[in-house]
Amino acid sequence: MAEFMTETEQRSPSAPHPGTEGERRGRTGDGEAGPLDGQEAAVLLERTRALVDPELRAALESLPGSMRRIALYHFGWQHADGTPARGNAGKAIRPALVLAAATALGGPAARTAAVRAAVAVELVHNFTLLHDDVMDRDTSRRHRPTAWTVFGDADAILAGDALQALALRLLAEDPRPASRPAAARLADCVMELCAGQHTDTDMEGRAPDEVTLDEVLAMAEAKTGALLGCACALGALYAGAGHEEVAALDGFGRQAGLAFQLIDDVIGIWGDPGRTGKPAGADLAARKKSLPVMAALSSGTEAAAELAELYGSPHVSGDAEGLARTALAVERAGGRDWAQAEAADRMARAMQALARAVPAPETAGGLLALAEFVTRRSS
Amino acid sequence: MAEFMTETEQRSPSAPHPGTEGERRGRTGDGEAGPLDGQEAAVLLERTRALVDPELRAALESLPGSMRRIALYHFGWQHADGTPARGNAGKAIRPALVLAAATALGGPAARTAAVRAAVAVELVHNFTLLHDDVMDRDTSRRHRPTAWTVFGDADAILAGDALQALALRLLAEDPRPASRPAAARLADCVMELCAGQHTDTDMEGRAPDEVTLDEVLAMAEAKTGALLGCACALGALYAGAGHEEVAALDGFGRQAGLAFQLIDDVIGIWGDPGRTGKPAGADLAARKKSLPVMAALSSGTEAAAELAELYGSPHVSGDAEGLARTALAVERAGGRDWAQAEAADRMARAMQALARAVPAPETAGGLLALAEFVTRRSS
Repeated sequence: MAEFMTETEQRSPSAPHPGTEGERRGRTGDGEAGPLDGQEAAVLLERTRALVDPELRAALESLPGSMRRIALYHFGWQHADGTPARGNAGKAIRPALVLAAATALGGPAARTAAVRAAVAVELVHNFTLLHDDVMDRDTSRRHRPTAWTVFGDADAILAGDALQALALRLLAEDPRPASRPAAARLADCVMELCAGQHTDTDMEGRAPDEVTLDEVLAMAEAKTGALLGCACALGALYAGAGHEEVAALDGFGRQAGLAFQLIDDVIGIWGDPGRTGKPAGADLAARKKSLPVMAALSSGTEAAAELAELYGSPHVSGDAEGLARTALAVERAGGRDWAQAEAADRMARAMQALARAVPAPETAGGLLALAEFVTRRSS
Repeated sequence: MAEFMTETEQRSPSAPHPGTEGERRGRTGDGEAGPLDGQEAAVLLERTRALVDPELRAALESLPGSMRRIALYHFGWQHADGTPARGNAGKAIRPALVLAAATALGGPAARTAAVRAAVAVELVHNFTLLHDDVMDRDTSRRHRPTAWTVFGDADAILAGDALQALALRLLAEDPRPASRPAAARLADCVMELCAGQHTDTDMEGRAPDEVTLDEVLAMAEAKTGALLGCACALGALYAGAGHEEVAALDGFGRQAGLAFQLIDDVIGIWGDPGRTGKPAGADLAARKKSLPVMAALSSGTEAAAELAELYGSPHVSGDAEGLARTALAVERAGGRDWAQAEAADRMARAMQALARAVPAPETAGGLLALAEFVTRRSS
């Protein structure tokens, strides 16, 4: 599953972004610059870390010794040899969404009440990272070797299992009435994440013409949108919100997550290598079935046929020239424009959902700022 | 983690067993033959399957399609191609313990109430089987190819993840007050199971003299005892039992689980190959650090030194003669006697714990019968 931290820090602030500021501001009726200021998201994320880290750390300390060691390494609080490290546990975007949703619907008291749910969401996110890294054989995460490369597959799988259990134990121990529906939603979300990761690994083994754009969109929603939506929904539950508001906030997080994925895919093809930290066209070289590529392939254009040939051949697109030709084919087949328009549309749907749950724009500011942040908006 | 089903069906009814019937009957003051009759366990297990299977099946049907397919295969309800199968989901000893504990402390109403908890325990057990098979590269389970050999590592890991989530969702959705402490206990148990499996895989890579008997006992308690204890504790919670009764029933399950493991290890060395379905001395050939072997190695006897040499050499014990010599060394160093005495002691502790929670022996009959069953008692 995608990490917001590394990419965000490394990628260009002038990265492609769908729509215009006015469009999205209009959706919530917010004419002030304040909530859309990148500074607000930074402050929210920092405040989230300050609220969440002590409880997260305490929860990890409660693990059995062998599991604790792997978890503390994964979260960046320990080196592989068990000595203390500075910690680099990511930007905590998901816990920030829990707390922002709770605040938007229930004020500061709800935010305080929801800290445990925020920790649970962060634990689930990190359980999936541990397991996905094993399956995808990813060797680096947050600029450090992944847990399975350090401790082996078995320990990385076990530590992930333990983090899932820890997340659901935190909610089971929480006497607040919201904890019960929150646990049910979080467990449902895990099942959706699993299905999304299955589709992702399954699609890798299929030819591009055996995969549809709808499948890739559904996969992105399950892998990235589901947990962002769940985070917002849990915050709403802890604010005592009703069924409709909870569902609307889930929709807000899902759609914002899809917008993020679309923009991330655009950057994966056309992003500045100096900013992204990845070689140009890395996603194309890996023949990733990203959203712009799948949209291009299904466009029925001449460029689509060229792209299909380039993607189907193991030889053509490996060098810089071949990758540039492939990127151009995606663009000429409309993949780039489609992705940007689709991202704008998803953000618009996110804002509509947010407006349904939180009609007063000044109250929605935190969620708005975070949605802007994950789609790397620079205002 | 050990399965009771296959071994039980395949192994000799005259397998070594600790203690005498009278001893253990004495502990609970039960002089009647009824509760110790193997027939009662068989009836209990059959009744458990009838109560649990419909809810288990319904829970699995609620999984996302890709996860459902792997889970239904694992539980034996589908072939690998998705066509229906007869089903061979094991003897359901853990759900039977949940229901027997609930019945012992709360009567038939508690048993009905606890069916969902029984399903949750069975789901957790099967999640760990799916993951352990990946880690241990075990290719066969319940006479069928393991899920990872059919669907690949990634899908087996994901299906395990989904089953854990499903287990905790079932409890989160259960409005009964017991469901909250039950979920917390089940999540704690998962963490203990993870730590136990970590120790098991970790010990495999260590020399026998770098492993202590206490470590192996602690591992067996975490891997086998913890979930049997948790099953009994959940049943007690659903019967509305107090803290002390719940703890006592947890202890009962744990100690019975350790007794089972000790006897299973004895059979793994001296069992009749025609009954166990394994070649004679398979555990010795694999240089398994089983409990009788570790006890023998730590005995300080001459035979222990010989055994250490045999276990340390990759050549000596591979053939039938070498394995027979190794088995004899374990026996002469006291490993067999120790394991049988230790198993008897663990069963005695189990019975003491049971008597604390359920003073009336006629009420404890179901739990007693199941404990007898898992230690393969033939009366």
